[in-house]
Amino acid sequence: MNNFKFCVPTDIRFGKDAIECLPEELEKYGKKVLLVYGGGSIKKTGLYDKVYSLLKDFEIYELPGIEPNPKLTSVEKGAQICKKENIDVILSVGGGSCIDASKHIACAAYYDGEPWDLVLDRSKVEKALPIAVVLTICATGSEMNSGAVISNEATHEKLEINSPLLYPALSICDPTYLYTLPKRQTAAGTADIISHVLEQYFQPNDGAFVTDRLSEGILKTCFKYGPVAMKESDNYEARSNLMWASTVALNHLLTVGKGGAWTVHPIEHELSAFYDITHGDGLAILTPAWMEYVLCDKTVDRFAMYAENVWDIAGDDKYEVAKKGIQATADFFKEMELPATLREVGIDSDKFEEMAEEAVRTSGVSTRAYFPLDKDDIVKIFEMCK
Amino acid sequence: MNNFKFCVPTDIRFGKDAIECLPEELEKYGKKVLLVYGGGSIKKTGLYDKVYSLLKDFEIYELPGIEPNPKLTSVEKGAQICKKENIDVILSVGGGSCIDASKHIACAAYYDGEPWDLVLDRSKVEKALPIAVVLTICATGSEMNSGAVISNEATHEKLEINSPLLYPALSICDPTYLYTLPKRQTAAGTADIISHVLEQYFQPNDGAFVTDRLSEGILKTCFKYGPVAMKESDNYEARSNLMWASTVALNHLLTVGKGGAWTVHPIEHELSAFYDITHGDGLAILTPAWMEYVLCDKTVDRFAMYAENVWDIAGDDKYEVAKKGIQATADFFKEMELPATLREVGIDSDKFEEMAEEAVRTSGVSTRAYFPLDKDDIVKIFEMCK
Repeated sequence: MNNFKFCVPTDIRFGKDAIECLPEELEKYGKKVLLVYGGGSIKKTGLYDKVYSLLKDFEIYELPGIEPNPKLTSVEKGAQICKKENIDVILSVGGGSCIDASKHIACAAYYDGEPWDLVLDRSKVEKALPIAVVLTICATGSEMNSGAVISNEATHEKLEINSPLLYPALSICDPTYLYTLPKRQTAAGTADIISHVLEQYFQPNDGAFVTDRLSEGILKTCFKYGPVAMKESDNYEARSNLMWASTVALNHLLTVGKGGAWTVHPIEHELSAFYDITHGDGLAILTPAWMEYVLCDKTVDRFAMYAENVWDIAGDDKYEVAKKGIQATADFFKEMELPATLREVGIDSDKFEEMAEEAVRTSGVSTRAYFPLDKDDIVKIFEMCK
Repeated sequence: MNNFKFCVPTDIRFGKDAIECLPEELEKYGKKVLLVYGGGSIKKTGLYDKVYSLLKDFEIYELPGIEPNPKLTSVEKGAQICKKENIDVILSVGGGSCIDASKHIACAAYYDGEPWDLVLDRSKVEKALPIAVVLTICATGSEMNSGAVISNEATHEKLEINSPLLYPALSICDPTYLYTLPKRQTAAGTADIISHVLEQYFQPNDGAFVTDRLSEGILKTCFKYGPVAMKESDNYEARSNLMWASTVALNHLLTVGKGGAWTVHPIEHELSAFYDITHGDGLAILTPAWMEYVLCDKTVDRFAMYAENVWDIAGDDKYEVAKKGIQATADFFKEMELPATLREVGIDSDKFEEMAEEAVRTSGVSTRAYFPLDKDDIVKIFEMCK
């Protein structure tokens, strides 16, 4: 078990009607609120009106229109409002993109230079506004961690900002807000949660037994309730279990004692960057192919363990057990109506080389991953997904 | 899944030599430190000297001699020192008793009345000194939660104080400090961890699937590494997994979405109160008997689930599976060299009635437990343990 630091101070309020605490909690920080949200679905669902009725004694400024991959230009706009209006607290109502933008705004509000500097040099993050979250999509775990991914359109970069100052102070997680999610978002979100856990599970350190067992618990939860949420959009048990699984999947608990670079996420980021496909779709396509590609004497024990502990697959031949676990994973994504090939999302082989090169260049996939992959390996995985 | 609040701000520094951060971290609070510790084992192991060498620039006041069941008189002494010397931060070097005393001292330091008032009326806990912990025994989870149990010798009460202000600010968990633990303490501590998880696992709410799966992960960790730590005192993998399992077992993670009163702990508290036996010994004696006693049509599914998921016991007859799981639990405690009968710890049937009555009176065991037990039930469980 590697040494680790674990300090996750976010105050989670989980459950139906948890939002009722909002005025009392926000008041701790002040009366001037920057409301950050996305494309307006919160107006259709009534959540926008609910927020205004709860915060009738507050002074609310708005930053609507946060994009699915939040852009630096939005962050700049938000930071300007915070500075000009002396905002006390940011209220982020939405999913991961909205929260990520809010995190960057929170520290940019106290920074005199260009907000992008804070992404390039984390040591410049010295102070941040408090952030409160009302979560409407479960996938990224941003509601209980300190990271955010921001896209700079001018430089074509998509990078992470991270600082202990960026943990949301408060996150309201009401599973009933997930009832109105389109099936495609439920599916893609679940694929993202699963991939977060797998990235951490398939990291080298067999001594972190306890962490692996907790990871398996989160995986079982996703595999059980993903299909239920697809079929019964308003199943509270399914939505609540998935929502909490999603938070725990990326609040550092599943990485303690372990370490190393992620694999499938950085490869998928290239698919999304070059073709603007849905992140969860890309993960569902790549994950089984990656598993198959790296299965070998060095990895088979862990893949067999995954199959046994998560999928209850038994057998004497560990390769056979491992392969059945990989097949079960692929079958699950199909059951979730997620794509299984690049063709299905309109990607041909034209940019395989270029994307593979970028994945190697911008991540630790070739150096610090569970099973390091070079450019040729990644091209081969793309080929498997055609 | 029940609604819940989860906010656990303690900064955990886990691993070998984690203590090196102590001067830098304590400095954030000030230079005047109250060092709280127990019977002096930290002098034998060198930890006491290590603390002094790290804190050579600090002004250290001492409160030694904290008892295994920390007493109000110790708390009063500590609070007096804090007030008189204007202490900035409490440094608690020890196990659960030491941390519990420190928590009570931390809030008593800011309270003008009698410290016991804070136990009787939690709303009086309005401010507390920051607490830093160096953990030397893993069992109670006090290093990452907000509760403390204090004994009032004058009134013969043993009660809990609890407040969000009492989370330790910092907890240093170095598994190598467990190498010198006597086998009996390793065994009793592991029994305590297991019981904490079982108390939460056997709470009514079958909808909190994800929480149950996480609990099973912690239980598997204890059952795997308990015997290893007994045989190989300096096995880092075993000690580190048990140490983190112990923290997670009682930092609220395993109770989210669930709820209800505990059962075996309040019954055991009476054994400890009347006969001063080791808490973990009492839990090891009572747990299998309690399981056997409450096994019925209402509970069999959950006991069978426990047997299947934690002990890998398969079978068609759920009663048989459940019974095998209970037997596995009893066998485990025996393997840990823990007592299996009350006779072994010098308890006869003289006070069965009185202890059962007290357990019902001072806890929710007869009203809000997974399987409510009245006085006669508890006497019968005692009889089973003779």
